[in-house]
Amino acid sequence: MHLTELLSSPRAARAAARSGELTGNTAGVAYGHVQGNVAILPRDHAGEFERFCQRNPKPCPVLAIGDPGDPRLPTLGADVDIRTDCPRYRVFENGQCVDEPYELKRWWREDLVAFILGCSFSFEQALLEAGVPLRHIEQRKNVAMWRTSIATTPAGRFHGPLVVSMRPFKAADAIRAIQITSRFPTVHGAPVHIGLPEVIGIRDLMQPDWGDAIEVKPDELPVFWACGVTPQAVVAAAKVPFCITHFPGSMLVTDLRNAELAIL
Amino acid sequence: MHLTELLSSPRAARAAARSGELTGNTAGVAYGHVQGNVAILPRDHAGEFERFCQRNPKPCPVLAIGDPGDPRLPTLGADVDIRTDCPRYRVFENGQCVDEPYELKRWWREDLVAFILGCSFSFEQALLEAGVPLRHIEQRKNVAMWRTSIATTPAGRFHGPLVVSMRPFKAADAIRAIQITSRFPTVHGAPVHIGLPEVIGIRDLMQPDWGDAIEVKPDELPVFWACGVTPQAVVAAAKVPFCITHFPGSMLVTDLRNAELAIL
Repeated sequence: MHLTELLSSPRAARAAARSGELTGNTAGVAYGHVQGNVAILPRDHAGEFERFCQRNPKPCPVLAIGDPGDPRLPTLGADVDIRTDCPRYRVFENGQCVDEPYELKRWWREDLVAFILGCSFSFEQALLEAGVPLRHIEQRKNVAMWRTSIATTPAGRFHGPLVVSMRPFKAADAIRAIQITSRFPTVHGAPVHIGLPEVIGIRDLMQPDWGDAIEVKPDELPVFWACGVTPQAVVAAAKVPFCITHFPGSMLVTDLRNAELAIL
Repeated sequence: MHLTELLSSPRAARAAARSGELTGNTAGVAYGHVQGNVAILPRDHAGEFERFCQRNPKPCPVLAIGDPGDPRLPTLGADVDIRTDCPRYRVFENGQCVDEPYELKRWWREDLVAFILGCSFSFEQALLEAGVPLRHIEQRKNVAMWRTSIATTPAGRFHGPLVVSMRPFKAADAIRAIQITSRFPTVHGAPVHIGLPEVIGIRDLMQPDWGDAIEVKPDELPVFWACGVTPQAVVAAAKVPFCITHFPGSMLVTDLRNAELAIL
């Protein structure tokens, strides 16, 4: 596997994950292509989770749902097999992580339904290409994330707080970032909040619940987007008997292009 | 003239201004139709002013420019005559207001060029129709305006600070307001600033330079748009030998619909 191919071709990236050559972070892999958050649930919970996503499209923008027991996701790539194509996974039983395998052959079941959800990598590419700087990327940190006081709309056993990610901007860049991300509703879309962290239950901008602390300078505003950690936290809190997610940072690389997700 | 007709028909509104029946504020007149700020300058200054507008499209969005000496503006209405169709005018000589007439017949000259610029009434209609509340309208006040520390891009004798108007919103409404007004670039478009008034040289939100003080509540952000007072202030500061504007609030009512200005 040539690095050049890995960095440009989603099919090569998936093949590398499948063969065990790619086992880590997918950041920078197959530039320009959509990467997805993964949640795999038994059919018994899948209907409720689908309704949860439908009711909370900003944190849970659905890119694809597999058929029960079927590991293929042909709308994301003709060769996609969700059992092998993420570099790494996490397997949960009753809310406890019981395995962090590199493929799912021994865990796959005939009642499992795979959900692929949009992720902020896609809109971050659009921001960077528009010249809007992203501090956490410049500083090679993880984005800062918080549990907020905003409740998601429940569906059956799934409920809990909205989780947001924060990016700091000067005012003119914040306005531009709102314009740009509004074009991408299937990858979290427009921000849910701007300025005034305390209004959404965030007490300390330097103490995120997940990720790294990112400085907000005196002439900047914190801008908050709905985050894909929301469904993960909701599924974990529901203590479903069995579920599988991607390992953090080891996303499913798809054939979709970020630019084709733009609605305008 | 029936009130109903005045409130719905731009042609009726202009006829009422022309006949002297309508002499005051045009707010609420010919609902849904574009109202324009008016600046009339001698040909000697018109080229420079046109370049000033081109270089500063957010405060100076040009809807129409007349031919020298020609009071008609057929793209805004087949019957439009800028000498009679605003309810009231202001005439300036060397930066001093020398008359506030109801028509311009005695002031019109063969070298005058009329500029019609977009105004925030158009995007405010779009905000209200989207359910985004506007406090200054609810309280029947004028919008609050400030001279900022942001310089306009000069053109010849025209230069000076950007003037902004401010509307307070909760964060979610601020984000929605940015989305909505981005669709209307010919009526000031997206905001130029949000939050942090001191960053653009505004010291006290309760002390506007023009208009009325509008409260910003603790869970709200001030959102700032480029304002049509900018070109008026710039023209006044340039002390051009002769110019005419509309009387504040007594705009030119056009046949254009606000909704047709939306670029998306």
